[in-house]
Amino acid sequence: MRYSSETVERAIHELSKLPGIGRKSAQRHVFYLLKVSEEEVNALAQSLIDLKIKVRHCSICFNITEQDPCPICTGETRSRSIICVVEEANDVVALEKTGEYKGLYHVLGGVLSPLDGIGPDDLHIKELLARVDKSVQEIIIATNPSTEGEATAFYLAKLLKPFNVKITRIARGIPVGADLEYADEVTLSRALEGRVII
Amino acid sequence: MRYSSETVERAIHELSKLPGIGRKSAQRHVFYLLKVSEEEVNALAQSLIDLKIKVRHCSICFNITEQDPCPICTGETRSRSIICVVEEANDVVALEKTGEYKGLYHVLGGVLSPLDGIGPDDLHIKELLARVDKSVQEIIIATNPSTEGEATAFYLAKLLKPFNVKITRIARGIPVGADLEYADEVTLSRALEGRVII
Repeated sequence: MRYSSETVERAIHELSKLPGIGRKSAQRHVFYLLKVSEEEVNALAQSLIDLKIKVRHCSICFNITEQDPCPICTGETRSRSIICVVEEANDVVALEKTGEYKGLYHVLGGVLSPLDGIGPDDLHIKELLARVDKSVQEIIIATNPSTEGEATAFYLAKLLKPFNVKITRIARGIPVGADLEYADEVTLSRALEGRVII
Repeated sequence: MRYSSETVERAIHELSKLPGIGRKSAQRHVFYLLKVSEEEVNALAQSLIDLKIKVRHCSICFNITEQDPCPICTGETRSRSIICVVEEANDVVALEKTGEYKGLYHVLGGVLSPLDGIGPDDLHIKELLARVDKSVQEIIIATNPSTEGEATAFYLAKLLKPFNVKITRIARGIPVGADLEYADEVTLSRALEGRVII
């Protein structure tokens, strides 16, 4: 269904470009925005514009940041001997939330995915290799345990081998709180492979 | 999970105010916007700002429009003798899509809902009564067949009675393509009540 107002149509069109937002949801959002105050709509619009003005990628680790280098790369309490390699900036947030990890990060900006035309040159792999000097003792490869994530981990491990650094991969196994009965076979065999002495 | 960047946090906060958007979806949208070009983000932001600048309510029928009165109220091919009363501007779009209706509209801006504190003065009811003159022959009450919609229809019918105008209500019954077996009893009894000679 189309609206007589071109402005409404354009807002619906722009909103439905967002991931997971179809025309129906975009319509709901537009009708919501037509009802709220002008200040609220402007605050939303400005916050989106600011994303592109203020937020950039850290020139060292490619995490999102407002200052370059980012607070993690410059953090005095962070251990410089360990780098955790992740796919996206959200992964950094998830890992930081655990409060367990005190090293540095390196955000690849995606995973190798030949079907989508994403090769090594499209990820920040060269920049990772450039970071590996004598001060680095361990590199944790924390890409997702998906097909692409595993392939990327394997590729990185091969590339990093000559650097004489400890290369580790995050453990894959049964999630805490989950049930063995419902775990898929691949996860279960990974959990067996990765078993530890108690 | 919280981001180190305040700008990112603010964009997530603003986006999650939209109906049906939680923090997780807002995060996805923000990460999507961080990846696309500045032009695309600005186009989205501008389209939202324009909503408040360009789109207003028609002073006659309260439909959303960019020119006042709206194209339907000023349309030369529209019959001025019949007014269809609906809850929201989206309903106008839905009815227009049928291509069946050639009269005018009146958008109430909601329904009577004492629990939400919405009374007759919060809807464009006075403005509807002011529109009913000798040229109007029929008023179709097309509020939703919900409890509030039915109550509002009943209230309007009572108010409009003294005006000596034909008052009709859209038919409630089995939707086309649906199955009698799965229809609820209220819909089924309405369908029986509203039966027509074939």
